This record gives sequence, C-alpha cells and structure tokens, in this order.
Amino acid sequence: MQQIGVIGLAVMGKNLALNIESRGYRVSVYNRSRERTEEFVQEAVGKQIVAAYTLEEFVQSLETPRKVLIMVKAGEPTDATIEQLKPLLDPGDIIIDGGNAYFPDTLRRSAQLEAEGFRFIGMGVSGGEEGALKGPSLMPGGPKDAYQLVEPILTAIAAKVDGDSCCTYIGPGGAGHYVKMVHNGIEYGDMQLISEAYHILKGTLGLEANELHEIFSNWNQGELDSYLIEITADIFTKMDPDTNKPLVDLILDSAGQKGTGKWTSQSALELGVPLSIITESVFARFLSSMKEERVAASEILKGPQPTPFTGDRAEFIEAVRKALYASKICSYAQGFAQMKAASEAYDWNLRYGEIAMIFRGGCIIRAQFLQNIKQAYDHNANLTNLLLDSYFQQIVTDYQAAWRQVVSVAVAQGIPVPGFSSALSYFDGYRSAQLPANLIQAQRDYFGAHTYQRIDREGVFHFKWFE
Amino acid sequence: MQQIGVIGLAVMGKNLALNIESRGYRVSVYNRSRERTEEFVQEAVGKQIVAAYTLEEFVQSLETPRKVLIMVKAGEPTDATIEQLKPLLDPGDIIIDGGNAYFPDTLRRSAQLEAEGFRFIGMGVSGGEEGALKGPSLMPGGPKDAYQLVEPILTAIAAKVDGDSCCTYIGPGGAGHYVKMVHNGIEYGDMQLISEAYHILKGTLGLEANELHEIFSNWNQGELDSYLIEITADIFTKMDPDTNKPLVDLILDSAGQKGTGKWTSQSALELGVPLSIITESVFARFLSSMKEERVAASEILKGPQPTPFTGDRAEFIEAVRKALYASKICSYAQGFAQMKAASEAYDWNLRYGEIAMIFRGGCIIRAQFLQNIKQAYDHNANLTNLLLDSYFQQIVTDYQAAWRQVVSVAVAQGIPVPGFSSALSYFDGYRSAQLPANLIQAQRDYFGAHTYQRIDREGVFHFKWFE
Repeated sequence: MQQIGVIGLAVMGKNLALNIESRGYRVSVYNRSRERTEEFVQEAVGKQIVAAYTLEEFVQSLETPRKVLIMVKAGEPTDATIEQLKPLLDPGDIIIDGGNAYFPDTLRRSAQLEAEGFRFIGMGVSGGEEGALKGPSLMPGGPKDAYQLVEPILTAIAAKVDGDSCCTYIGPGGAGHYVKMVHNGIEYGDMQLISEAYHILKGTLGLEANELHEIFSNWNQGELDSYLIEITADIFTKMDPDTNKPLVDLILDSAGQKGTGKWTSQSALELGVPLSIITESVFARFLSSMKEERVAASEILKGPQPTPFTGDRAEFIEAVRKALYASKICSYAQGFAQMKAASEAYDWNLRYGEIAMIFRGGCIIRAQFLQNIKQAYDHNANLTNLLLDSYFQQIVTDYQAAWRQVVSVAVAQGIPVPGFSSALSYFDGYRSAQLPANLIQAQRDYFGAHTYQRIDREGVFHFKWFE
Repeated sequence: MQQIGVIGLAVMGKNLALNIESRGYRVSVYNRSRERTEEFVQEAVGKQIVAAYTLEEFVQSLETPRKVLIMVKAGEPTDATIEQLKPLLDPGDIIIDGGNAYFPDTLRRSAQLEAEGFRFIGMGVSGGEEGALKGPSLMPGGPKDAYQLVEPILTAIAAKVDGDSCCTYIGPGGAGHYVKMVHNGIEYGDMQLISEAYHILKGTLGLEANELHEIFSNWNQGELDSYLIEITADIFTKMDPDTNKPLVDLILDSAGQKGTGKWTSQSALELGVPLSIITESVFARFLSSMKEERVAASEILKGPQPTPFTGDRAEFIEAVRKALYASKICSYAQGFAQMKAASEAYDWNLRYGEIAMIFRGGCIIRAQFLQNIKQAYDHNANLTNLLLDSYFQQIVTDYQAAWRQVVSVAVAQGIPVPGFSSALSYFDGYRSAQLPANLIQAQRDYFGAHTYQRIDREGVFHFKWFE
C-alpha cells in the first residue's frame, strides 16, 4: 500500500510527489486529466510512485488512515476535488489542502469536514517550483492528531536550515494558510522596500546596474543577508542578449500580483491592526500597473528640480542600507503583530518563534535576521511587538538618524517612498505616548456625539459643544 | 392617505420623519417597540404624522405605490424588517433603506427585491442627527423610475447650497451606499490630515489652544473653508469647566471608528485602486487606540532630540496649511478615482461632479473646494484623476515645496505623518513615468517565473536566470 497520495500534477503537485518519493515514501498520484498523469509516469520511471487513473483506484491504493494531499487550484477546484473524494474516504482519513487557499475557505472546509468525520489540514507551501522539489517551507494547520500522522513525511520533505526542518505545526483550522498569507504579505513589503532603495540609489547617485550589483552583494554579506537581496544582486548582473543592456533596465515597471498581499491587508483592516507597510506595498503595485496613466501624468505634474548629490556617496549608500533594514524591521513587526491579533481572534495559539524558524528556509523571505526574530520570542514568547525586543529596539534607535535623512532626501528629490515613510511614521507613531487623536475624538463628539474618554479620569463623556 | 412611511424611530428616523413633515408631506411612522412610538407621538403633537402600532396598519395607511423608508440598524435588523414588510406590500412598492448599509448587502437586497417585483433604493444619508432634521446630504441608488417617484420628497428634505438640493440620483443598485461609504472614507482622511497639521504645529512651534484657534479660524477663511476646519477652530475655544484647561488637551488620544473607513479601504484593495491616504488614516486610528501599548513603547523607543524651531513661524504655519491642502487634494483624488473604478466595475455610470455638489451641504466633508471638483468634472466628465485638472494641478505643483519642507521637518522631529507623507508619495508616484517596479517584476520572474513585459517591444517574457 502507498503511504500518501497526491492529487493534482501541475508543477507544484508533481514536484512535491517527487520530493516525497525521494525521501523514501511510497506515493500514489492522480490527476483529473489522464494526459498529465501519463506524462508524469514517463518522467518518474523507476520511482516508487503508483499512478492512478480513477479516484477510486487512487483511494484504494492508500493505507489507512489515508493521507491525501490536494494540489489543485485554490477556490472551486479545491472544493470540487474534496466533494469527489469524500464518498470514497473513510472517517478519520486525512485530507491536506496544499494549495494557495484563502484562509476563510480553509476555516469553512475544516469545520465542514470535521463535522463529517474527516481530518482536514490546510497547509501553506512556500518556495515555488524549486522549493516543492527540493525542500519547501511548510505551514500545516489542522487537528494536532492528524498533523502527527503526517509529520514524518512533512518534516522529511521540508527545507532544512542548520539541521532544523522548515515545517512545524502552526495551529488548528485556518492557521496554516493564514500564516502563509502573512508570509506573502511580508514578501510584498520586502520587495517594495528593496525597490525603493534601488530607486533612491539610482535617482540620487545615478548608479548603473554594475554598481548596484556591488552594493546589493555587499549588503547581502551583512544584516540584510537574505534570498531577496541575493537575487537582487544577481538580477543586476544579467544582460539582455539582444541589446547588450542590463535586462532590468528593459523590464516594464508594471508589477503584477496574485492577491495574497491584498488579502493580508484586508485581514489587518478586519482585525484592527495597523499594517501600513505591506498595504502601501500593495498600493504601490497598483500604481505601478497604471503605467500609461502615469506617463501621461508625468507630462502634467512636474516635480522639484533635480539637484546633484554633493555629500559623501559611501555614507549615503550606508544610510540607505540602514533605512532599508529599519523599514524591514517595522514591516515584520507589523506582520507578526497581525499574526498575534489573528491568533487571539481565532484562538490559534500561534508560536511566533517557530514560525520565524520555518521561514528561514525554502521560502522567498528566507533571511538571516529571522534568527533574531526567533531569539526575540525565545526571550519573551508573548512579546507585544518586535520593536520592543532589545536587538530590534537597538537597531531602529541607532539607525533612525540615517533613516530620517534618506526619507528627507527622497522627499526633497521627488522620489516616492511609500514604504520607507510609512515605516517611519509607524515607528514614530508607535513610540508616541501622545498622538493627535484627541482632536479626532473631539471632532467625532462635536459632529456625531460619539463621546470621548479623558486622560484625567475614568468614564465616557459627551461635551455640549453648542451651549 | 399618507405619502410616505418611516420605519424606525431612533434619532435618525425620527428626525427624518419630522423633516419630511415640515416640508408639507403626510408621514406615517412605525417602530418595533411601542414605547418609542408613543414618545414620538408626544413630541409630534399637531403634526401631519400618523403613528402606527402594527406594520399592517402602517402599510395600509400609505398611498400606492407605497414609499417606505427604513431607518433601522444596518445588517440583520434591516433584513428582518424587509422580510416582515414584504408580505404586506404590493408589487411596485418602493422600499428605501436609509441605514448605513454595507454596499454588498445593498447589491444583494436590490437583486432579490427586484426579482420579487419590488423597487429598492439604497440611500446614503449624511449629516448626523442635525442633518436628518434640518437637511442631510442624500445619496439614493436604485431603479431610476423609483427614484423619480420619491425625488420630490428627497430634494425637499435635503440640505440646500446656493439653491441646489444636496440630493441627486446616484445610480443603480448599491451605488448610493457605495458613494456614502467613500464619503465616510474621505472624512477619515480629512480628519487625519487635520490632526497631523495640529500635531506638527503643536510639536514644532509649541502652540497652545488659543493660538491654534486663531490659525484654524484663518484657514477657514481661505481655500480650506470647510465644516471640519470650522469645528476644529471652535474645538480649540472650549474650556473644561472643571479644570479650566482647554478641553481638547484633556481628551484621550484614542480614536474610535464604526467601520466605514475600513470598508472603503477593503473595497479599494478589491478594485486595485491605490487608496493610501484614507487607509493610513484608518491604520492611524487603530494605532491611536493602542494607547497603553504606545505609552509603554514610548519608554523604550526613543526618538530624535527635539530641536527648537528657528525659522519664520508665520511662514512655517503657511507651509503647514499648504501641505494640508495639497494632501487633502490627493486624498480626494484617490477617493474619486476609487468611485470611478467602482462605477466601471459595477456599471453604475456615476456622475462625479454631481456627487461633489451634493457633498457641499448637510454632510461632514462639506467644503468650499467641492465646487472646484464640480468644475473639474464640468470641464471633463471623464477626468481620469483630479490631479490632472488645471486648478488642482496648479495647487499641488505650486505647494509642493512647502509640502516637502513640512514632511521633512516632521520626519526630522519624529512626528508621525502617515497622511501627509503617503499623500506626497502618491503624488510623486503618480507623476512618475518610471517607477522601480521593473525590479519587482525581475524578482517575481526570478523566483516564480511570473514573466514580465518589456519597454522596447510587445509580448510577455521569461528570462532564464539560472543559465
């Protein structure tokens, strides 16, 4: 009998099946269209993989309790697959959805399948094609007993960092897909902040691709050491074979997206968490995609006269690095605060340090500094905000002068910095004992009798503004 | 027979009923609890109002086609009221929901009630208690023929500005409640921007309430002339009777909200519209409400040393005014762009100039400069973005030096300016023919084979980054 089955042989499902088999597990596979299964069989000759051409065969090939990993498109295809599977399964069988599900769908499916006697795991899978094959970061959420039955397989196939597997039990219900969603939101933030650093360096110092390569390579040796900085450095080395110009200069500045960043922002709004940096990153992608409108606007709306840079170039480059790192820290502080709010709202009991650990390998946001996040939660598992941890507190406090300088230069030069400046406003707002919201409360009480509290006594008050 | 009926005698319903009666219309009223109806009868002695104590009586008192204005709580109470009403009504009767409905609910109710032969109008009502009684701003959306039947009553009760009624047909389905939602989002933005101006003036110049009163009074004489600036000026004159200190200084800086700002942001994310200023305003309210956490953080996260202001104070105050006005223009540009996107997505055919006109009276964001928005759409009904209109283009271009200076001062002083700086980043991003999203596209193609476009030729490309 086979130990696990994979439904869906598109690139992610196929690579996960190969990955599982490569760790010594017997796998069954099934795909809705016969052709893809046949192709896969050709590729997988000699491997311990059974290809089934009907769901019945597929299900019957699995040892019980069955473990079925669904890797089909999120949304209706996932629901359709589950509906087809259910009549063939027995109570206690485990269905794992490894697709890119929207977490409320996972909550709904969990509730329904558990009521019907099945065990359902919603699992975030990060790392793309290559990660799926060689070692993804895995974020499984569902009943703990079900997780324990699949844990050996999942930890075997996940990425490894310093001997630790990038897979941990996240929590019940939609917790796994939620954490994957926030991971993707954080990825949007990281990419936006890197693009702003690039824009500032190019816009103020007029740097070319080869110089930018040097800078990002250097940055990747230090605190910013991460996959995204590494590939950024590499991107600047690539030349377009046709024109022999740096490829990056020929790519259209119109960024696409697949919706997970947007979901993260929408959830933050729902939970009442200030998630400004990721949200500005999502808006920046929207604005980037309005290319023709921007080109037209650029003829009408003139900015400041560019002034040549006269300061110390190396110092300014270092200031940009500091601004990037401080902003990145704020973005993670917001993302982890959102996970905390979600954990409390949905009763997930998330373990933030463990989550940081599994982000270290397999996935796009893997970075050295996740170790610091882990340590922060080791010191205090209930840390309210990452900025309050001594390591991060020290960095943002020390780097703020450079950060403020870089934002000011960008503002003066007319370079948009929605990420850097929203991060700075968050830092300044978060560390403000007093914000001007007293005026907002006065206005709300004035026009809508919404009442207010006072700083000097308990209670809820309404002032008779018109008497 | 009575010409219109009002269900729900909480403050908004009661005041609207009195308003309608005062314009010479015969009104029936009904409230679920008998006591409130009895109270209202006491208040309304001698008026042309029939109080009904059962829904049957209420419905039978109305001339056909019946016009029923529902003023109950949004959500389930509205649905429950509609369900109770339906068996008593005839086909063609008109149900108006004047509550604060979430527009997808209005879309759903419209579709269902129209399928059942009724006519449904979802109507945004702005202006609070006083507006309801003396003249609100009304944003009705639904079938045009139904609107025409209630138009005389609605235009009679709405606020008047320069002889124009602040009521116009918005569009079909959820259009009315959608525009009301964006109105509220814009209100969040206005209030946040004013609070930032206040924070900067207080934080850099150390101004007291009486001086702030002077400044806002002056501002209200010029371009910023608006209800919110007017009440802000007035707020600074109010003294707490117990302590004899300015009341505003005693109000807790923890801002509440009722969700409509959040909805506006969530819809912008759904539609792909960059709505950064309103969204930052919503996040700023979230952050303000984390008062205890901020107080604790303020002990740990230190900002820059405050430096005494040495420039020309009057010039700086004027610069803050310019920054506020330029930011406000960007916020309205975003809000109106969102309405345009919604109009296209939902096929509403919104008339933006008319919408600006009805915002001029009754509602919280009423302001002189809405006239300029009207004129912008008079010049070009399909204007892509308000910033491209000559009046607004001139202002933001001329004011940008002051705006940049004010943001830089705030950044240097550690004063959070999420609204001012997101507005400036939007302006700088919108007028950028070239944004750094080419790097984001390169990254996405690098790690996920998401493809990219090129600036020099048509097509969709993928680069073999690893060869």
